Amino acid sequence: MIIKTDYIFMNTEKRKCLVHITDKVRDFVKKSNVKEGMVLVSAMHITAGIIVNDYEEGLWKDIMDWLERVAPVSDYLHHNTGEDNGDAHLKRIVVHHQVIVPITNGNLDLGPWEQIFYAEFDGQRKKRIVLKVMGE
Amino acid sequence: MIIKTDYIFMNTEKRKCLVHITDKVRDFVKKSNVKEGMVLVSAMHITAGIIVNDYEEGLWKDIMDWLERVAPVSDYLHHNTGEDNGDAHLKRIVVHHQVIVPITNGNLDLGPWEQIFYAEFDGQRKKRIVLKVMGE
Amino acid sequence: MIIKTDYIFMNTEKRKCLVHITDKVRDFVKKSNVKEGMVLVSAMHITAGIIVNDYEEGLWKDIMDWLERVAPVSDYLHHNTGEDNGDAHLKRIVVHHQVIVPITNGNLDLGPWEQIFYAEFDGQRKKRIVLKVMGE
Repeated sequence: MIIKTDYIFMNTEKRKCLVHITDKVRDFVKKSNVKEGMVLVSAMHITAGIIVNDYEEGLWKDIMDWLERVAPVSDYLHHNTGEDNGDAHLKRIVVHHQVIVPITNGNLDLGPWEQIFYAEFDGQRKKRIVLKVMGE
Repeated sequence: MIIKTDYIFMNTEKRKCLVHITDKVRDFVKKSNVKEGMVLVSAMHITAGIIVNDYEEGLWKDIMDWLERVAPVSDYLHHNTGEDNGDAHLKRIVVHHQVIVPITNGNLDLGPWEQIFYAEFDGQRKKRIVLKVMGE
Repeated sequence: MIIKTDYIFMNTEKRKCLVHITDKVRDFVKKSNVKEGMVLVSAMHITAGIIVNDYEEGLWKDIMDWLERVAPVSDYLHHNTGEDNGDAHLKRIVVHHQVIVPITNGNLDLGPWEQIFYAEFDGQRKKRIVLKVMGE
């Protein structure tokens, strides 16, 4: 069995945005030499998540606008700690913070339109995504 | 280690519905001969998801009605591409598009009421679910 | 390959609450002797979920208050079965019912603020979480 770990470092210019990371995950899997298995992609900071959805700019804005309605910027109790990012914690919960991508015949076994995105809700500082592959 | 892959093909009559797939996942695991491990169940199309919840028709309607409120049909920027399914992309994000089911003593290690459902939000055309099992 | 299973039993005093379980997951992984791999943490009852977020009491209340807005107590069709917990089924869907934690160098490979919580939405009775670890 092969088990490998790597990290993608993030520091987005915007406070909130989506970042396409499919190629980084694919490169990691190629280097790991796993031909059959699974790769975990998990946002390690609690104000960010991972989404597998369409590579389409209009939709990206739709997703971010919709999240502002579902989990809006507001006065949260969490802000008593000095933070102002309560909404970002909730947005991470809605989108979930991780995905598993199956690996078949040495490739990411994604559907025809599935692409992997890092969803940043409180950026402009150093963050990490963990990649963990297991297989043969 | 055993690693096996299969696909469930879907083409629902209704545009939006839940489809019970626990038996299909169970059959796949039995055939794989994995006695201890995990199976990934992941919707490969970006307008569908996977839910593990109750086998109860009233609840199924509750879930679909509630999703119309959380991620309603509306004018989305995504529709500038000619699509009209922006809400379906958002519904997939709310419910998440995949689950992992543990396998113990050769069986799906589900709770007493846990059943696996495919959640279609833009059907009436060919779609796929990937099943990937790893274990011994 | 090592594959181990265990269950965390829950019976919360309150009907709705978050329970910190990071230490229980860590103990299970230590005992399993897995140094590299993944552990699945999955709520086996369909009115509970798992969240990886901040260890901060104000935020815990923010999360539970926000969930009452996103998936409120209401009249659901599910209640025709005699149940009154329709909202709890929906809350489980929003937060998702499971997470995978990577294991690196014998430790849970969590971000600096990531902690694991069991999210109970219809407690005051016996429930279970399944833990499944795979690795070497």
